[in-house]
Amino acid sequence: MKNSITTKLLVLISFMFISACGADNVSEREWRALDLNNTVLLTLPHGKVVIELAPQFSPKHVEQFSALVKKSFYDGEKFYRVIDGFVAQAGPKDNSTKDKSVLTLAIEGQFETDKNWVFTPVQTDDLFAKKTGFKQGFAVATDDNDSAWLTHCPGTLAMARGNEANSASSHFYFVIGQAPRYLDKIMTIFGRVVYGMEHIQAIQRTAVVEGEYAVDSRKHTPIVNMKLMADVPINERIIIEVENTESTQFTERLVKRRARKNEFFYQKPPPVLDVCQVPIRSRLVK
Amino acid sequence: MKNSITTKLLVLISFMFISACGADNVSEREWRALDLNNTVLLTLPHGKVVIELAPQFSPKHVEQFSALVKKSFYDGEKFYRVIDGFVAQAGPKDNSTKDKSVLTLAIEGQFETDKNWVFTPVQTDDLFAKKTGFKQGFAVATDDNDSAWLTHCPGTLAMARGNEANSASSHFYFVIGQAPRYLDKIMTIFGRVVYGMEHIQAIQRTAVVEGEYAVDSRKHTPIVNMKLMADVPINERIIIEVENTESTQFTERLVKRRARKNEFFYQKPPPVLDVCQVPIRSRLVK
Repeated sequence: MKNSITTKLLVLISFMFISACGADNVSEREWRALDLNNTVLLTLPHGKVVIELAPQFSPKHVEQFSALVKKSFYDGEKFYRVIDGFVAQAGPKDNSTKDKSVLTLAIEGQFETDKNWVFTPVQTDDLFAKKTGFKQGFAVATDDNDSAWLTHCPGTLAMARGNEANSASSHFYFVIGQAPRYLDKIMTIFGRVVYGMEHIQAIQRTAVVEGEYAVDSRKHTPIVNMKLMADVPINERIIIEVENTESTQFTERLVKRRARKNEFFYQKPPPVLDVCQVPIRSRLVK
Repeated sequence: MKNSITTKLLVLISFMFISACGADNVSEREWRALDLNNTVLLTLPHGKVVIELAPQFSPKHVEQFSALVKKSFYDGEKFYRVIDGFVAQAGPKDNSTKDKSVLTLAIEGQFETDKNWVFTPVQTDDLFAKKTGFKQGFAVATDDNDSAWLTHCPGTLAMARGNEANSASSHFYFVIGQAPRYLDKIMTIFGRVVYGMEHIQAIQRTAVVEGEYAVDSRKHTPIVNMKLMADVPINERIIIEVENTESTQFTERLVKRRARKNEFFYQKPPPVLDVCQVPIRSRLVK
């Protein structure tokens, strides 16, 4: 009995919390169409992947990445650093003319927020931040110090860099394992996989365990091509809608996910959520 | 300056913490050989996977699973429930004669601990538990209430079940995405992948996004066969050693991982560790 009352209270408190924090932000639309000019179709030898870019958070990185995609910069390049449980990284050969031809970017690891900034809250006192949540489909975190940041989750697309903060140019990586949250704020996240993540997971690993033969670089997975979806012939487009994380339906789903009322949960887990363990659904329109 | 002193203090405190909690437990051996009678070789059409079983934590599940492996029970069965970012689950057809032939098991989701129980600590005030750490290579968690449990991380092997606690029999799953820690204690974890996780990640997904054609069940990834490594002909064995999480070298690695002194970290991340984001290394002996 006690458990049941506690659960009800938690659900109620969660609803109040969501109402208080997201009041300006809710919408009745459960699904959101992607902007085809900020959507990338990545073709791998074994499947197609759709990426949503985040110009609202990392405008300069998206601008440069999109320009490179438009001029087929990445076509034929390889995933040369693929570590199971960590990242799949691609780009032109280090220090090649092509590599050096691209300007370095000022890091966009955080963005400013003001008192009017709202997001869909997921968790307070997360291990790596005071608060986590979602903003326009992206996992975000904040310590309430007038800034917030996109947070590394599986499927995150970010720009690689050298040791200096402002040294990213064209090399990028997808997160393929448990969220490396320690990279938050010091790397620029600028997109996320919304379709075909299983093909990212199937990219040939390049790091081997001690004692094993090295992976021949000729086996590294190539990028067949990358195009902005708007530039793909209409009959070859993959049109995706994603869950609208600003919708009331989504906040209700978060409440349910935390409460775990399904009878499968014969004992209830702690009423907490890992923001990277909340899937944001996609659906294929065409 | 302040940051540097803080870092040193944290490293010192971490060492003290480790010394206090793991004093009886340390060893100079950096690597540990696997017991071939508690190691499974899983052959998939696209690669080989090595699994370490955990009879010290889940003896009845390991006993039943090993007996099934020994009689080739799983050979030819398929991964029929594979959800990207979540789990890859296999077993015989639900309610088939073969399925019903296996006894159900009492859950082994937690194990008792006493004041002499030691483990290698990773994090206090983790989101899902008071403490996390490692014990004999397995990620563990505890609330200090005379019990501890194996915790769901990528690569975890656990038994599936129905709604009742004691309904697991032969169906099993591997975690292939962000740690579903909400399943801790209410499922029985009894092993982990120590080699070939990329092949688990490449298993055909069976759940599709809304609007997409269903995956034909004939495409589901089959288990070619599973054998205890001790039963594999010597020249076909894959002999793995794993990092000894009770070693001083491992505790030092944890300290380094938390402090992130490498110059790549031009700003230091929070000095916390997600137990599921600490890779336990393997090496191939033969």
